[in-house]
Amino acid sequence: MIINKLVVLGAGLIGGSLAKACRQRGLAAEVVGWGRKEANLQKAIDFGVIDRYELDLAEAVKDADVIFIATPTLVAESMLERLAVVADSRSIITDGASVKGNLYRAAQRIYGQVPSTLVLGHPIAGSEESGVEAANAELYVNHRVILTPTAETSSEAEAVVRELWQGCGAEVVSMDVERHDRVLAATSHLPHVLAYSLVDSLAQQDCSYEIFDNAAGGFRDFTRIAASDPQMWHDIVLANKAAVLSMMDDFTDQLKLLRENIASDNGDEIMASFQRAREARRHFSSILQKRQQKKL
Amino acid sequence: MIINKLVVLGAGLIGGSLAKACRQRGLAAEVVGWGRKEANLQKAIDFGVIDRYELDLAEAVKDADVIFIATPTLVAESMLERLAVVADSRSIITDGASVKGNLYRAAQRIYGQVPSTLVLGHPIAGSEESGVEAANAELYVNHRVILTPTAETSSEAEAVVRELWQGCGAEVVSMDVERHDRVLAATSHLPHVLAYSLVDSLAQQDCSYEIFDNAAGGFRDFTRIAASDPQMWHDIVLANKAAVLSMMDDFTDQLKLLRENIASDNGDEIMASFQRAREARRHFSSILQKRQQKKL
Repeated sequence: MIINKLVVLGAGLIGGSLAKACRQRGLAAEVVGWGRKEANLQKAIDFGVIDRYELDLAEAVKDADVIFIATPTLVAESMLERLAVVADSRSIITDGASVKGNLYRAAQRIYGQVPSTLVLGHPIAGSEESGVEAANAELYVNHRVILTPTAETSSEAEAVVRELWQGCGAEVVSMDVERHDRVLAATSHLPHVLAYSLVDSLAQQDCSYEIFDNAAGGFRDFTRIAASDPQMWHDIVLANKAAVLSMMDDFTDQLKLLRENIASDNGDEIMASFQRAREARRHFSSILQKRQQKKL
Repeated sequence: MIINKLVVLGAGLIGGSLAKACRQRGLAAEVVGWGRKEANLQKAIDFGVIDRYELDLAEAVKDADVIFIATPTLVAESMLERLAVVADSRSIITDGASVKGNLYRAAQRIYGQVPSTLVLGHPIAGSEESGVEAANAELYVNHRVILTPTAETSSEAEAVVRELWQGCGAEVVSMDVERHDRVLAATSHLPHVLAYSLVDSLAQQDCSYEIFDNAAGGFRDFTRIAASDPQMWHDIVLANKAAVLSMMDDFTDQLKLLRENIASDNGDEIMASFQRAREARRHFSSILQKRQQKKL
């Protein structure tokens, strides 16, 4: 047992999976859920995700050791604001949102001095499913969780959050806030933006029927992420606006260069770019493979 | 048995797989291979891909019923040129290249009047593997083959090529040349260009190590096609230049619009675009599912 009371704000896939894992693995003596919809919290009890729930936020977070904010990205800022009023100063506050800079800036705005008990984090795990029904105690096993402690963060608070995630089977790394947001803009936010834009662009072509009718496995893989939740990705691109725009601009420059090389039959430059990309992709494959082997 | 003599020019994945399927399924009385490298052709015999081989093109295509050009895309044009000299006028000439317009224009240039026995085609199948070792008699089963007959094409020649592919288990459709090249630019060439550009762009970021080290399943799927053969895709984007550039421009316009909407916090437009994309992606999923169910 790592802590006494865990409070999960928002019992969807991310919050529900942490709650369920902590219960099943005995990491917390008590797991309390809070949310806006009582029916959903009742479901969370029925599915073994939480021990009990509260509809009143102050009641829910009373004597909490750890409060996990698992609401949608843009709602998380307002949760920080509400917690500043009702949470004990000794409760550790952490979260699972995909962007960290907006929450850190929100904390600066709300608290003035960011509390030492705030340990922002981001589990790199998800599923095409969502909702409490999809909550899965194994979701984080062998997945990476990035914590983004700052100069203000107490190492004790960070250690507790780290142990909780490790207890759920995750591999935990630390990174500074800005670096996290740039890295995630690159590996996740930009690819989603490209996939959405590609599919939206193709759907507007005059031959869109034939396009989708003749697409095959490569297209399916490439566009899978365009099936993701629009509201979630709307929140993410706005919350991480600066990094997303910067990555979009770098990408657009690269694409423009390739366009010029194709238009002018500059075969050598086209080859060089495709070869560099293949090398980098192979390097990434080998990293993934090593990571998976380490886990076996 | 559909034909007497099939000649495959280039015994790699695409040509070797057709050859092997025709042998195993008894679609041709004899399958002859032609290529530049004797060792490779010998391997093709050892692997049961062809019955025999010739190193001299004229000898290879003598009395052929069907000649299948399975060389790299840009080499296919010069094969047409050589066949114009050595092939019987009754031999049906078909191919498996990813772009059809450049070959059709090459045929116009070479023959003046495009022969009625030319039936350009494109099997939408492939593999991350390549070479005669990867030749697989089942490669085309349940895969689509697009034929692009023109006004000059004889319906008899088209029927023979169609039956050969159907005999290999493929689903054959017809489409005009220009439509084919636009559709493939959309579903295949543009996604490859985007995947290569993305990975090349990220590899140049200062935090490229962290980027690849923290990427997960979504990124793996999205960039899988960036591991494709650079030479092959170099050929394809140049052979299909007009359609590829036009699709790149439409995509870039779409991306630019999204960039403006993110920069100006225009959440409604961001949501609308992501929602349209998700709808179209779901529509595509349902097409794929129906196609797969039909095959079961």
